[in-house]
Amino acid sequence: MFRSQIKVVDCTVRDGGLMNKWQFDDEFVEKVYLANTNAGVDYMEIGYLSSESAFSRDEYGPWKFCAEADLQRVIGPHGAKKIKLSAMADIGRIDFDDIPPRAESSLDMVRVACYIHQIDAAIALAHHCMDKGFEATINLMAVSTVGPRSLAEALDDLSKCRVPIIYLVDSFGAFYSEDIDLLSRKYMEALPNKAIGIHAHNNQQLAFANTIAAIINGVNYLDGTLYGIGRGAGNCPLELLVSFLKNPKFKVKPLIEVIESHIFPWREKIDWGYSIPYMITGVLNQHPRTAIAHMESDHKDQVTDYFCQITSATDLV
Amino acid sequence: MFRSQIKVVDCTVRDGGLMNKWQFDDEFVEKVYLANTNAGVDYMEIGYLSSESAFSRDEYGPWKFCAEADLQRVIGPHGAKKIKLSAMADIGRIDFDDIPPRAESSLDMVRVACYIHQIDAAIALAHHCMDKGFEATINLMAVSTVGPRSLAEALDDLSKCRVPIIYLVDSFGAFYSEDIDLLSRKYMEALPNKAIGIHAHNNQQLAFANTIAAIINGVNYLDGTLYGIGRGAGNCPLELLVSFLKNPKFKVKPLIEVIESHIFPWREKIDWGYSIPYMITGVLNQHPRTAIAHMESDHKDQVTDYFCQITSATDLV
Repeated sequence: MFRSQIKVVDCTVRDGGLMNKWQFDDEFVEKVYLANTNAGVDYMEIGYLSSESAFSRDEYGPWKFCAEADLQRVIGPHGAKKIKLSAMADIGRIDFDDIPPRAESSLDMVRVACYIHQIDAAIALAHHCMDKGFEATINLMAVSTVGPRSLAEALDDLSKCRVPIIYLVDSFGAFYSEDIDLLSRKYMEALPNKAIGIHAHNNQQLAFANTIAAIINGVNYLDGTLYGIGRGAGNCPLELLVSFLKNPKFKVKPLIEVIESHIFPWREKIDWGYSIPYMITGVLNQHPRTAIAHMESDHKDQVTDYFCQITSATDLV
Repeated sequence: MFRSQIKVVDCTVRDGGLMNKWQFDDEFVEKVYLANTNAGVDYMEIGYLSSESAFSRDEYGPWKFCAEADLQRVIGPHGAKKIKLSAMADIGRIDFDDIPPRAESSLDMVRVACYIHQIDAAIALAHHCMDKGFEATINLMAVSTVGPRSLAEALDDLSKCRVPIIYLVDSFGAFYSEDIDLLSRKYMEALPNKAIGIHAHNNQQLAFANTIAAIINGVNYLDGTLYGIGRGAGNCPLELLVSFLKNPKFKVKPLIEVIESHIFPWREKIDWGYSIPYMITGVLNQHPRTAIAHMESDHKDQVTDYFCQITSATDLV
């Protein structure tokens, strides 16, 4: 039996945009939006909400900002919208005044991403978004680096806030399913009146498996991207997730169509998916930035050099 | 704490050979052998034992046959051998007389692969190998297509035989970890005096996760291949498996070195790893042969056509 509370969130444009500074053209975003709609996906995260004073439009594409005019160009006029739209807001890169009033926006949800030391600021921003009429989540990143006492305090803070959805985020692709079992239960117990979400990365080819582990433990908000597109090793492939869920409202064919027509061409331009450097940062529970730099260099296949350099101060030898 | 009973089996040459008719040159096989030795891998499956009357050496490389002269060319003389060597024997493609006497062979183990209707023949061949002095396993393939009554009968037959190691094989990459949980326990209960092995395929990016699930359930013989090389979507990546295991005898660096020097070049010549056609056969619990044919065609990126063709008789739409 399917679980009706499950919500699937496509992060293709938002997370994939980390690879190309959100320079997807309008047609790409429109086709992904239509495919998600036809596939029964619940939310599409169409980009970031960012302050235009913090980033230049010369450098960054429209999905770094999610201005209403840009949204309407791809989804049509406000009233014609089909599925819910989400945008992510990073603490420190946006001001309260950059959040539009709900009535003037095609967005339905704002997901506030933060590190552990930013929890208070994240709660304040998420509350501000809710007060403006949006759904809101808090996505606590890099939990694999947070000790149990700090995490307990953060979950206690979150339990007292009004934000109804809290995400477990494996930013470094470091978790095994046993970790997801443990943390999912910890989140569920600490936040009994909230929904929990999962956002997994694929450094160790475990993004889909860890998402399944979270589902089994009661997690209901599930992130994925088409063909796993995303920074570094990428994400949980949306087509696998939708095929796994037994809810008849989901259809995988529209996802396969748009992967063929609009994701495959990006394989020539940007690199994502499993590779040895991303595996190494996953195993070491490190931010993938050194692996990304290596994969963007002209010697990306020299993975032994990378391994030696990155492990010179560790015992993974 | 690591579990000392765990044995890791590298199937790079045997399973990867399905892609190139075992036409790996001697240097490749030697370097993989040395890397496995230095990494602490317990067994290397170096190819198939096949009847030379069933296959032509003009078409198939030496690792389809594993003749002693071929083995010694890459591993050195008999006495110099470093880690244990295994060869696979397929029921119906080998006669008893093709199995050499143990004293004349560099092989340590013969793994007998069979389908459910070949269980009796597999037991007889495995017993024959044991009587000649080899270690032996039975690898029951395509278990995802076997009903519970047939499986119970097969496990009952296996429980009565002398073969000490029985493999759970997810030939179609169709299992989720919940299936592995269930089947691992079923195998363990039915075969309390035997060791259980796992051989997983990566159609749904679950080969590594399913191998972990098997480990948690007490499975001790673990198959992998370098960088996941193998037919179709490939196998559990050995470097991920070795990084996960906490046994200090395993070293990942020799595996990364040989991946860089000898596996990466094969990426230009043969195609393996996750792709939409393999995902579809995995989800549908089908043999990957139609997906392999599609991926070898000149229209491999036309995955929607493949999807429509393959699902026209199913409800995965």
